[in-house]
Amino acid sequence: MKTIFDTPVHELAAAIARRDITVEAVVRQFIDRIEAREAAVRAWQFFDAGLAIAQARQLDRQPVAGPLYGIPVGVKDLMDTVDMPTTYGSPIYAAHRPVADAGCVAASRTAGAVIMGKTVTTEFATYQPGPTANPRVAAGAGPHTPGGSSSGSAAAVAAGMVPVAFGTQTAGSIVRPAAYCGVVGYKPTHGTLPLAGIKPLAPSLDTVGVLARTVADAAFFVGALARLPLMPDPAPGTRLRVGLCRTMHWDRASPAAREALEQAGRTLERAGAVLIDVSLPPPCDGLTAAQIDIMGYEAAAAFAPEARTAADRFSSGFAALLATGQQIDGERFLAAQALAAASRHALSRVFDSVDILLAPSAEGEAPAGLGATGDPVFNRMWSLLGNPCVHVPTATGPAGLPLGVTVIGPRWADARTLAAAALLECGIASQH
Amino acid sequence: MKTIFDTPVHELAAAIARRDITVEAVVRQFIDRIEAREAAVRAWQFFDAGLAIAQARQLDRQPVAGPLYGIPVGVKDLMDTVDMPTTYGSPIYAAHRPVADAGCVAASRTAGAVIMGKTVTTEFATYQPGPTANPRVAAGAGPHTPGGSSSGSAAAVAAGMVPVAFGTQTAGSIVRPAAYCGVVGYKPTHGTLPLAGIKPLAPSLDTVGVLARTVADAAFFVGALARLPLMPDPAPGTRLRVGLCRTMHWDRASPAAREALEQAGRTLERAGAVLIDVSLPPPCDGLTAAQIDIMGYEAAAAFAPEARTAADRFSSGFAALLATGQQIDGERFLAAQALAAASRHALSRVFDSVDILLAPSAEGEAPAGLGATGDPVFNRMWSLLGNPCVHVPTATGPAGLPLGVTVIGPRWADARTLAAAALLECGIASQH
Repeated sequence: MKTIFDTPVHELAAAIARRDITVEAVVRQFIDRIEAREAAVRAWQFFDAGLAIAQARQLDRQPVAGPLYGIPVGVKDLMDTVDMPTTYGSPIYAAHRPVADAGCVAASRTAGAVIMGKTVTTEFATYQPGPTANPRVAAGAGPHTPGGSSSGSAAAVAAGMVPVAFGTQTAGSIVRPAAYCGVVGYKPTHGTLPLAGIKPLAPSLDTVGVLARTVADAAFFVGALARLPLMPDPAPGTRLRVGLCRTMHWDRASPAAREALEQAGRTLERAGAVLIDVSLPPPCDGLTAAQIDIMGYEAAAAFAPEARTAADRFSSGFAALLATGQQIDGERFLAAQALAAASRHALSRVFDSVDILLAPSAEGEAPAGLGATGDPVFNRMWSLLGNPCVHVPTATGPAGLPLGVTVIGPRWADARTLAAAALLECGIASQH
Repeated sequence: MKTIFDTPVHELAAAIARRDITVEAVVRQFIDRIEAREAAVRAWQFFDAGLAIAQARQLDRQPVAGPLYGIPVGVKDLMDTVDMPTTYGSPIYAAHRPVADAGCVAASRTAGAVIMGKTVTTEFATYQPGPTANPRVAAGAGPHTPGGSSSGSAAAVAAGMVPVAFGTQTAGSIVRPAAYCGVVGYKPTHGTLPLAGIKPLAPSLDTVGVLARTVADAAFFVGALARLPLMPDPAPGTRLRVGLCRTMHWDRASPAAREALEQAGRTLERAGAVLIDVSLPPPCDGLTAAQIDIMGYEAAAAFAPEARTAADRFSSGFAALLATGQQIDGERFLAAQALAAASRHALSRVFDSVDILLAPSAEGEAPAGLGATGDPVFNRMWSLLGNPCVHVPTATGPAGLPLGVTVIGPRWADARTLAAAALLECGIASQH
């Protein structure tokens, strides 16, 4: 029998809308899960069971309105919340209380969601980790990173504490933690969901997305917020042309990560897809370096206020990121933006001959230790290009931790990208 | 003899750096001008002479550091300031005191600028005007709009109250007020200056720029903040190919605005340029409608928080903008974004055969009355494309108010765009 933990979000919302179950009953089950596992996982920067229950009771008293009515949602602590503290992962903002919600938080509330709390982010969504541990690690194996910067959101979903949680990605902050924690991570096309009220890091790259248990949950959630029909069709019509894209960083992938990509391709082939080897066109070779330049330049500009008044409370890593960015002159920034524009056009030609691309999500399994969150080397290029990306967990590595792949579609073709990801997810499930 | 009011910003900064003049002496002259004209112009949402003088004295006590040392700057009240109230032009934020400066404000301070105060913005940078009057109107002619949304910045520069002032543009909020007030308005390539700490309206479009007395001042100011060499070369080398672009809205331009464009073309021809008639390629026909859709959709998402809690304090026009945006579904938004991407590529081909484009800035002179800020019909397309735009005042219309044209360059070719604008400005000056 299905429990609430494996009921799809759209079915749960339908059950609540029929009043088959109260919002309070739903929320209490997730609270129980949080209370059972939080001491080990530490996914939450702020969690108050009473506040969640109060929201649930309020919704139970009102007429049902909105596609996410009663759905518990985790909110990355990079996003402003008017009723909860918002630290951006930095001691500078330890006592910060925003005057308004972030746009996507307000949209969730208007759609009926219950904001369960604030999930841990690394410092300003960059590299200095929070306390969160990867919940997939077997007891006694020692702590492993959940990835970052959406560390708490990925860990909370992986631990069953919420069905969906907001993430943001500038380099690899949705896809990498999704990969390490074995959940779905969906980074929509750049610009799909609003950035208002989210601490900016590098606006050319910053993208709001979601961590979820399944592709359908991710699609339903973002679709509800963006008023887009994203739910994957369970019976896709035409024969999918899948470009196997090992990328210019293939030598950085572990043997198991490589095998995961090849195996994902075979799974899609068995589901009726045609596999085509794809090399990214020439300008794309410079994308990772360009992403690093743009992120550094824009971060130095965005954090000029804190650099003037509170630089002593930056971590040494964040201070170094800003110092490097401050050294990048405008012409180098321009050249990186021009390379990105040329690459977007070149990649759009690649999508004339394939429907989607399949690429590695990370170098391998989650690294041991909580001192670093792993490397976004396989994510930076897609963040700069702005294409929709869906991480699908597909395998288990030699350390017993999750592996998976990224499904990439053309910009603004999120529905197609999610449909292909759902096809892969379904193919993987049928093998088990 | 030059006064401080016609000394170029880079020369003024050099004089201050040599300690030929104190920052306080500079600031006091602009304060005197503000105090003489503010009752009639009402450019300032917040102005405190004591605060400006305190900043000036502090700078006079310190070693000179930064390219804008001692330069008085006006800040649009859409931008956060930690030491001044920030209303975003809305009664909802009448008592708002941000916890940090906007990124571009902090960067100005780090470069040595004196923040003179906050200039009037329309409500949330949209249509509901503030009290500002166009300072170019002759006594007795009745009030005329300064344009918007950067109403106060354009009027303050036109009235000589500051040499430069920040503006932002989402539809036509820098170029249109520059045109109506007869000053230079420079909207850099989208993404050049940081949006952190600026109230978001529609992030695909929102762009920080400047209102200034001259092209050189605008170039020097933005170049200093973006670490870009933007100062126009007084002796341009190659023969400039100028595309005369009447746009699909040519029938909306008044006879005088049409003549201003043709005359600006002839002025550049006399300066050695080659004139080429340019029609925008087919996908561009839909740009204005696409800009309206994207602005509405993104504004509805960005203002979801205020719509939940303070909608009763929206103006009726702003409420209508959000209601319209809320009706735009995601697929229409996607189609608009796809059209923009196709148009950007098509326009990049146009720039294979011309170096810059020349297009109308507004339908005509500033309309009479303070109840509306004019129509951005000639600006929306360039805001969506993201190309750099420089408004150059070139003529006077039948009502005795300023007219001018927009110089448009390829994205990330701001230096070329400013150089062409400077050539036009120089040609106009030599005719008087």
